[in-house]
Amino acid sequence: MLLSTRTSARGFATTCRALAGSTGPVDSRAVVFAEHGDPTRVLKSHRYRLAKLDKGQVRLRFELGAINPADINVIQGVYPSKPQVREDIGAEPLSIMGNEGVATVEGFEEDGTVEGRLKIGDRVVMGAPQLGTWQSHANLPHASLIPLPSDAELSLRQAATLAINPPTAWRMLSDFIPLNPEHSDAATKGKKKQWVIQNGANSAVGQAVIQLAREWGVGTINLVRDRPSVNELKSYLHSLGADHVLTYDEFLSRENNTRAKVKEWIGRDGEMRLALNCVGGKETAEMAKLMSMDGKLVTYGGMAKTALALPPSLFIFRKLTSTGFWLSNWTQTHPQERQTMMRSLAELVAQGKLKEPETEVVELAGSDAEVAEKMSGVMKRIEEGRGKKILLHWRDE
Amino acid sequence: MLLSTRTSARGFATTCRALAGSTGPVDSRAVVFAEHGDPTRVLKSHRYRLAKLDKGQVRLRFELGAINPADINVIQGVYPSKPQVREDIGAEPLSIMGNEGVATVEGFEEDGTVEGRLKIGDRVVMGAPQLGTWQSHANLPHASLIPLPSDAELSLRQAATLAINPPTAWRMLSDFIPLNPEHSDAATKGKKKQWVIQNGANSAVGQAVIQLAREWGVGTINLVRDRPSVNELKSYLHSLGADHVLTYDEFLSRENNTRAKVKEWIGRDGEMRLALNCVGGKETAEMAKLMSMDGKLVTYGGMAKTALALPPSLFIFRKLTSTGFWLSNWTQTHPQERQTMMRSLAELVAQGKLKEPETEVVELAGSDAEVAEKMSGVMKRIEEGRGKKILLHWRDE
Repeated sequence: MLLSTRTSARGFATTCRALAGSTGPVDSRAVVFAEHGDPTRVLKSHRYRLAKLDKGQVRLRFELGAINPADINVIQGVYPSKPQVREDIGAEPLSIMGNEGVATVEGFEEDGTVEGRLKIGDRVVMGAPQLGTWQSHANLPHASLIPLPSDAELSLRQAATLAINPPTAWRMLSDFIPLNPEHSDAATKGKKKQWVIQNGANSAVGQAVIQLAREWGVGTINLVRDRPSVNELKSYLHSLGADHVLTYDEFLSRENNTRAKVKEWIGRDGEMRLALNCVGGKETAEMAKLMSMDGKLVTYGGMAKTALALPPSLFIFRKLTSTGFWLSNWTQTHPQERQTMMRSLAELVAQGKLKEPETEVVELAGSDAEVAEKMSGVMKRIEEGRGKKILLHWRDE
Repeated sequence: MLLSTRTSARGFATTCRALAGSTGPVDSRAVVFAEHGDPTRVLKSHRYRLAKLDKGQVRLRFELGAINPADINVIQGVYPSKPQVREDIGAEPLSIMGNEGVATVEGFEEDGTVEGRLKIGDRVVMGAPQLGTWQSHANLPHASLIPLPSDAELSLRQAATLAINPPTAWRMLSDFIPLNPEHSDAATKGKKKQWVIQNGANSAVGQAVIQLAREWGVGTINLVRDRPSVNELKSYLHSLGADHVLTYDEFLSRENNTRAKVKEWIGRDGEMRLALNCVGGKETAEMAKLMSMDGKLVTYGGMAKTALALPPSLFIFRKLTSTGFWLSNWTQTHPQERQTMMRSLAELVAQGKLKEPETEVVELAGSDAEVAEKMSGVMKRIEEGRGKKILLHWRDE
C-alpha cells in the first residue's frame, strides 16, 4: 500500500499510466446519506455504476477521503454548504459525503478537452466544496480539481489534508493583517515585529498557522485545552515553531498575570493585531483585549457553541474589528489565487516546512452493512473528539 | 437673549464687532472637577483669570456648552479621553469639563496669526476633543476650532449640537458601507436600494442618521424603547424621514414575524448591509441576523452595559463584520475632512434638512455654591435619562 511511504508524484504517475485512459464502466463505492440526521445513524454505504464521462469531466480514483469536523454538521444538515442531491445513482435521492481528499486522474473523455491542465496519473485535490470525496471513484469537472505540482514530493496523507486547513491558515494570515511577506507592503510598514494569538492551536488549522507564521517571521501565542499529556503537546507545538503555548486556564488565571507576560513577550518593538478564533469562549474576549489598537479578530469556528461575547468598548475605542473566514466563500471569488496558493503550500510541504496533522487511515471494505457499521463507529469517535484526523481509504475489490 | 431666535451668523458677527479685539484680562467661570467620581458630587464651579493669549490662540466667549451622555463617563474617569489637568487655574489641579459647544471669537493676539481662518465675531465649534466647553470664556489654539460658514443661518442651539452627533452619523453612513452619494461608486454598484437598521434611533445620533439617510436616498429601520408616548415618538421620527419604527418588543416578538416583514420592506431590489448599534442588547444580534451578506455592524455606544453577543456563524458564513466608531479617533487622522464635513452639515441645517435634537438650556449664575448645586441636579436628571439634551449657558455678570 502506498499510504505510509513518500512517493514522488512523477513515479506515481508512471505507475498509473498503465491504466491510462480508463474511462469504461466502473462501479464506485460511496459513503452517502438519504436524510440529514445523527451522523452515527444516517450514513450508508452505496454502490453505483459511474456514468459515461461528460465533456470536460475526468474519471478519478480516490486515494484518501478526509473527515473534517464540519462534515458532522453537513450530515446533520446545519452547515450552509451541502453535497449535491443525486437522483441518478440509486432508487432514492442520495448525497455523497466528503469535502476533502486526494485522487488520481484515471482518464478523460476521448475528445474532451482538459486544456492542458491534467493528464492521466496526475494527483489532484478538490478545488470546489462538497464534491464527494468519501467514495472510491468519481466523474468530476476538470475545472473543479487542483493538480498537485508534479515535482513536489507529497505523501498521500499530506495531499489528503492539504486543501482545506492549510489554505484556511494561509488566508487568515494574509487577508486581514497582511503578514504574508509576499504582500508585505503593509506588513513591514513601521517594521514592528508582528504577533498572532490563537485558540484551538492544536487543531489542524492551528498547527498550519504556527508553521506558516514561523516561515513568515511572525510570532505566535497559542492556547490549547488542558489535558493529561499537555506538556507533550506543548513540546510538539514548540517544535512546529510556536513561540508560546498556554492552556486556557493558564491564560485566564489572574495569578499568572498573563496580560503583563504577553505585553513583555511582544515588547515595544512588536505589535499583535491579529487573533484567530475557532472556539469563542471566555478566552476569546481576553485575546481581543490583548490586541494592539486596530486589531482584527477572525473567527473560523465556534467549538464553544455559544455566542461570541465581546465588550463594546473594544469596538468603539480600540478599533477592534471582529470578522470571520470560510474558505468556501473565499474560493468562489478567488479561483485563480487558490491555484497559486495551493502550489505554494505544496512546495512548503515538500520542503518539510509544513507538516500535516496526525492522521489515521480507516480502511473501508466488505459488504455495505459492514462499511456502514464502520462509519458509524468512526462518527462516534469523532463526536467524542480528541482523536487524530481520519482519512478514509476504499480497499480495492 | 439670543438662544431661542434664529440669528444669521453675519448679523451676529456685526453685533460682536463692538467687542472686537477684546483680549484684556477677563475672568472665566467654569464647571470643573478635581477628582474623578460620582457626577452628582464631584463637579464644582470655579472662577479663574484667563492668561494673556499665547501665539496662535484666540479668546472665546462660550455661548452654549452641550452635555452628552459620554460626559458622565469622563467625570467618572472611565472614558478613554480626558480633559487636560490644569495646574495653572487654581490652588489644586483642576479639569474643565465639556466636549461640545459653540463659542464666539472675541479676539486674538495682536501679532498672532490665524491664517485668515478666523475673525472677530466668528462663531466656532470645537474641532478637538475635551477642550472645556462648560465655561464662560477660554483661550484656545485656533487650529482646534472649526468656524461655522458665515453664510449659514444657524441658531445657537443648532450650532451647539452640531459637532459630535451629526458627524458621528455622517461618518457611520459613509465609512463602512459608503451610502453618501458624494462617494457613490461603491454604493450604487448593483444599484440596489440601500437600507440601514439602527437601535437607539431616538438618540441625537439616531435622529441625524434618519435625516441624512433620507437626504441620501437610504431607507431606515429604526428601533426605540417602548414608552407611554411611543406613538408620538414614532410619528416624530417618521416626520424626520424614518421609513419604519419599531419598539424593541415589537422587533423581537415572534408573533410579529418581524423577519418576514423586514424582508418584505427591503424587497428583492434592496439590501441592508449596515446596522448601527448604541445599545448592545438582544436586539443587536437580531439586527445582525437580518443584514444581507457581507454586512457591517457598527457599534458607537453600549447603553445595555453588557458584552455584545453575536453568533459565530454570522461571522463565518455570512461575512458579518462587527466594528466600532468613535469620532475622537477619526478626527485625529482626518482633520481636513472634518472641516469639509462640518461645512456640509451646517448647510444641511441651514436648509432645514437636518433638525437638531430637542434641547433645554440651563442657565448658570450666582455663587459657586449655587452653580455646583445646579450642576448636581442636572447630572442627576441625566443619569435618570429620558430628558432633552441639556445646553449650559453662563449668564453675563
